[in-house]
Amino acid sequence: MFQTVTILLDWFGLCIFTVTGALVASRKEMDIAGFVLLGAVTGVGGGTIRDLVLGRTPVFWVEEPAYVLACLGVAVFTFFFAHIPQSRYRFLLWLDAVGLSLFAVTGAERALQAGAGPVIAIAMGVATATFGGILRDLLGGESPVILRREIYITAALLGAATFVALGALGAPRELALGAGFAAAFLSRAAGLVWGLSLPRYRARPGRTPEGRG
Amino acid sequence: MFQTVTILLDWFGLCIFTVTGALVASRKEMDIAGFVLLGAVTGVGGGTIRDLVLGRTPVFWVEEPAYVLACLGVAVFTFFFAHIPQSRYRFLLWLDAVGLSLFAVTGAERALQAGAGPVIAIAMGVATATFGGILRDLLGGESPVILRREIYITAALLGAATFVALGALGAPRELALGAGFAAAFLSRAAGLVWGLSLPRYRARPGRTPEGRG
Amino acid sequence: MFQTVTILLDWFGLCIFTVTGALVASRKEMDIAGFVLLGAVTGVGGGTIRDLVLGRTPVFWVEEPAYVLACLGVAVFTFFFAHIPQSRYRFLLWLDAVGLSLFAVTGAERALQAGAGPVIAIAMGVATATFGGILRDLLGGESPVILRREIYITAALLGAATFVALGALGAPRELALGAGFAAAFLSRAAGLVWGLSLPRYRARPGRTPEGRG
Repeated sequence: MFQTVTILLDWFGLCIFTVTGALVASRKEMDIAGFVLLGAVTGVGGGTIRDLVLGRTPVFWVEEPAYVLACLGVAVFTFFFAHIPQSRYRFLLWLDAVGLSLFAVTGAERALQAGAGPVIAIAMGVATATFGGILRDLLGGESPVILRREIYITAALLGAATFVALGALGAPRELALGAGFAAAFLSRAAGLVWGLSLPRYRARPGRTPEGRG
Repeated sequence: MFQTVTILLDWFGLCIFTVTGALVASRKEMDIAGFVLLGAVTGVGGGTIRDLVLGRTPVFWVEEPAYVLACLGVAVFTFFFAHIPQSRYRFLLWLDAVGLSLFAVTGAERALQAGAGPVIAIAMGVATATFGGILRDLLGGESPVILRREIYITAALLGAATFVALGALGAPRELALGAGFAAAFLSRAAGLVWGLSLPRYRARPGRTPEGRG
Repeated sequence: MFQTVTILLDWFGLCIFTVTGALVASRKEMDIAGFVLLGAVTGVGGGTIRDLVLGRTPVFWVEEPAYVLACLGVAVFTFFFAHIPQSRYRFLLWLDAVGLSLFAVTGAERALQAGAGPVIAIAMGVATATFGGILRDLLGGESPVILRREIYITAALLGAATFVALGALGAPRELALGAGFAAAFLSRAAGLVWGLSLPRYRARPGRTPEGRG
């Protein structure tokens, strides 16, 4: 049984990601159907790939159409209110950070519940957290957020690994969920606020990073 | 049982979409294997995602390899005759409109036959109709057709919703199929002929749509 | 039973493709988590799509997490040693050629073992060989390698078709594997060394290939 707290976190992450997809639609000046498609793909995309890879089909939103209706409602709402935040792109990045952190832990938990071991659970946490945003950026023609310089994929990895490790050590489930979320969100927030990043690959002096050299 | 008329419509949509994929290959001056890959991905892409999400695996073209051979034949044919239409891109958009309208109804019908309810059937119609073209544009490095300003996703939505609604109201199946196709095609055609579009999201005055604001 | 030699070839192809994904991460100056994500998606991407389409779920790397750990190790290794080759992009293309040739035959064989006929086996060989690189280029924001002018998709097609044809003619399995690999690799190598390409589609004189004409 998938427990109440995870279900709530999962719903919250889905709505948040739907907003980010709809905000990309607003940046491209799409119509309301475009908001719904891009919002829904972003909201359910990561979880869909997780379910497919684990063999849990029909995927969660086919089993429970309320997820699709939630994406619809949130995308339509965003169509009318997207002009309110002063900086839509900044707002999008913060919402994306919340969604990323939620899905890193709930994605890992769903994998554990499907019988996966710790390595696969962490991989599923990262995949669930990142692929909604990857699909959003590909379909919306945006520069992929995973290529941004501040901590991003690392945050999902930290969150999923913290959750799985604490669970394996016997920590109470709510504590593991909370600690995993906090690990992901705080590291991503450090990236957004201070531009913090891990050491990045550097080409040798005199060579351009993208050159043939 | 999947009935004859839907099977015919489905085959027709698959061939039409394969032509659009091959036309993108022609725009990129690919070789004949490129025509086949891009044609096949476009022809079977939407239906593949529909089958995966519904849990109907192996997907339809693994069960029935004639679909793959049809993509092959159509792509090779297009390789030799793509120079005939005066305006290939315009031709591509019209074929895409026919394929979109066909798959919006057949995608929804396949979902109903797999036991899905109306919400999921409409979502599947839209996904089947749009994802072949999305994959084509991503793999071919084209600007995604879903970002075009005239009615597009809305047409798929109208077609699928008309078909599902008429079916639920007890209309004869052929009538529902025809009305769904007509709703999708006429709205997309209005977009192509008159540039008709739904009200689009507009940034506030003084703000650029893609800016940080 | 999947036999030893194929398993070895499959592992080798997975590690090679992981290196190419990590090299794209190095071109984008990503951090170490970016190397792991892009490396893993490239390494397991083609096989994941093959397994999903064939209905073999959970996919191979969920069943055997050692694949994921191998991607992790190879990506971390590449993070520290990617500066060694004189020309990283050239090196990437040659590794990609080896991975392409390996997956063209092992992808086809896995499909045959899952009960597919020759047409689907060849299609699966091509899909397994090309989709890892397609995902790598999409996620990494690179120009898709399938759009390059020299022989590429054709090489995968030749390799898979040679393997399936020899097998159907009763050739010993190791011979079929070796001949399929050689057919793919030599044709791709001819493309890389001599710029060899098949006849490509050409627009009519006076028309630009990507123009509206």
